[in-house]
Amino acid sequence: MIKFTEKAPFVPVELSYDVEKILYKGKSRFQEITVVENEDFGRMLLLDNVVQITQADEFFYHEMLTHVVMHAHPDPKNVIVIGGGDGGIVREVLKHKSVEKVYFVEIDEEVINVSRKFFPEVASGVNDPRVEIKVMDGAEFVKKAPKGMIDAIIVDSTDIIGFARTLYTKEFFNSVRNCLSRTGMFVTHSESMIYHRDTVIKIQEILRNAFPIVDLYTNCIATYPGFWWTYNVGSVSLDPREVRQEFTIKTKYYDDEMHRQSFVTPKFYKKLLEGKLDWGLKGSFSVE
Amino acid sequence: MIKFTEKAPFVPVELSYDVEKILYKGKSRFQEITVVENEDFGRMLLLDNVVQITQADEFFYHEMLTHVVMHAHPDPKNVIVIGGGDGGIVREVLKHKSVEKVYFVEIDEEVINVSRKFFPEVASGVNDPRVEIKVMDGAEFVKKAPKGMIDAIIVDSTDIIGFARTLYTKEFFNSVRNCLSRTGMFVTHSESMIYHRDTVIKIQEILRNAFPIVDLYTNCIATYPGFWWTYNVGSVSLDPREVRQEFTIKTKYYDDEMHRQSFVTPKFYKKLLEGKLDWGLKGSFSVE
Repeated sequence: MIKFTEKAPFVPVELSYDVEKILYKGKSRFQEITVVENEDFGRMLLLDNVVQITQADEFFYHEMLTHVVMHAHPDPKNVIVIGGGDGGIVREVLKHKSVEKVYFVEIDEEVINVSRKFFPEVASGVNDPRVEIKVMDGAEFVKKAPKGMIDAIIVDSTDIIGFARTLYTKEFFNSVRNCLSRTGMFVTHSESMIYHRDTVIKIQEILRNAFPIVDLYTNCIATYPGFWWTYNVGSVSLDPREVRQEFTIKTKYYDDEMHRQSFVTPKFYKKLLEGKLDWGLKGSFSVE
Repeated sequence: MIKFTEKAPFVPVELSYDVEKILYKGKSRFQEITVVENEDFGRMLLLDNVVQITQADEFFYHEMLTHVVMHAHPDPKNVIVIGGGDGGIVREVLKHKSVEKVYFVEIDEEVINVSRKFFPEVASGVNDPRVEIKVMDGAEFVKKAPKGMIDAIIVDSTDIIGFARTLYTKEFFNSVRNCLSRTGMFVTHSESMIYHRDTVIKIQEILRNAFPIVDLYTNCIATYPGFWWTYNVGSVSLDPREVRQEFTIKTKYYDDEMHRQSFVTPKFYKKLLEGKLDWGLKGSFSVE
């Protein structure tokens, strides 16, 4: 049997999957893009040999990264999605009828093209008339965007190495803050609580420079090593734990109960975040 | 670098860990027992090459398997622990001052001996005077135990193959029910929600034959493949979601908030359990 083995950065375990078929293998300006077929997970998108999405379980991540801030906001109209070239976040954002405009900012156009072809159900929203695709660095985009106009900014980046690093800096968080309206909210995935606690803590710290309200929620993802995945929120004025809209959209995982539940963290975790506990696993991404 | 690769039953991904040192390797009557040292996880206990515990993260599982029913019960005095030869569950049970007697029923004495030597902090409760070790099949033990005397029965088995299968049958659940007092509660781990949904559903079904109240909770475990781990509860009369004791014991992960949170499941999950959704991943253990 052909196998694909993921050696993800700063992860002390390797994950191997059987590969039925290699559907696509190519190199963009930024990374290697591969699509493989696995019997259980269906099609899998790999960027530089790290699993980004699988057909079977992409909704766990896409729904949780999107809908928490989109439901904590009372009426999100203008949204920026940075990264997530597969289109999964854009698809989820467009489920909200209030949405008028989505700036979809992806640095690597090839990821959009490959996803359109091999993951049409994930990329289904990319051609929606409300979506404006910008092929560029998300950090550059928010730096030049008009001030105070955006209701939600969602970052769906690759691991925090290489070109994704610009999305985890003080400068970027300040630009994001400036783009947001008075009720605006920002969310970014922030790696695994198990394997990258230093990263999670550091992102919280940097976010606090830009936002009066910083919070964290988690869920469990089978195909991202570390599995206990974190999402960091920066909010201009609203508590992201509160659900401010009736829950009417169609989802598989997210609902208003899961929204509230995802913010509940164990004592252990609270102590970690306060720096009162030194837990074993140290490997971490560098953020500034 | 020396590597250990886990090919767990009915799991569509293999996990590989670096091995610094092999501390122990032996064969008991029942299984191969191995202890290895990993830089990040510390010592790891493998049974038939499947990770059972690691020093770094054993508390996620041990606390959640133990403390939910132990806190849902108002005053647990007599407890049966089946399996868990490493002693982790016994250690957690003994944190409850109400506990007078623990029957620790492990089929494989070698696991207890190896854990005493290599995981002294996990096996720390095994010699407590309240603990009576019974080296035998847990199913045989509960069949012959006196009726109506036990407040909590906790099953910490290996995967549901080979000798562990006797702990996932109608007959076993009926024996368990008969041992329990009028406020008694039973809990068993029931594999991964992601990879073994058929098993989770089937265990729920069989439990309903024996118990008027059946419930399910989950948490995230980094070193059990599937990562979104399930625990099935059977209760004679009390709702296991309710915390009936003041939370005073020392834990890292479990607390009264986590207790309630662990029962919250997504819509997707509820539909799966009602058989209204057919999700991709099919591999499953056989239970009767």
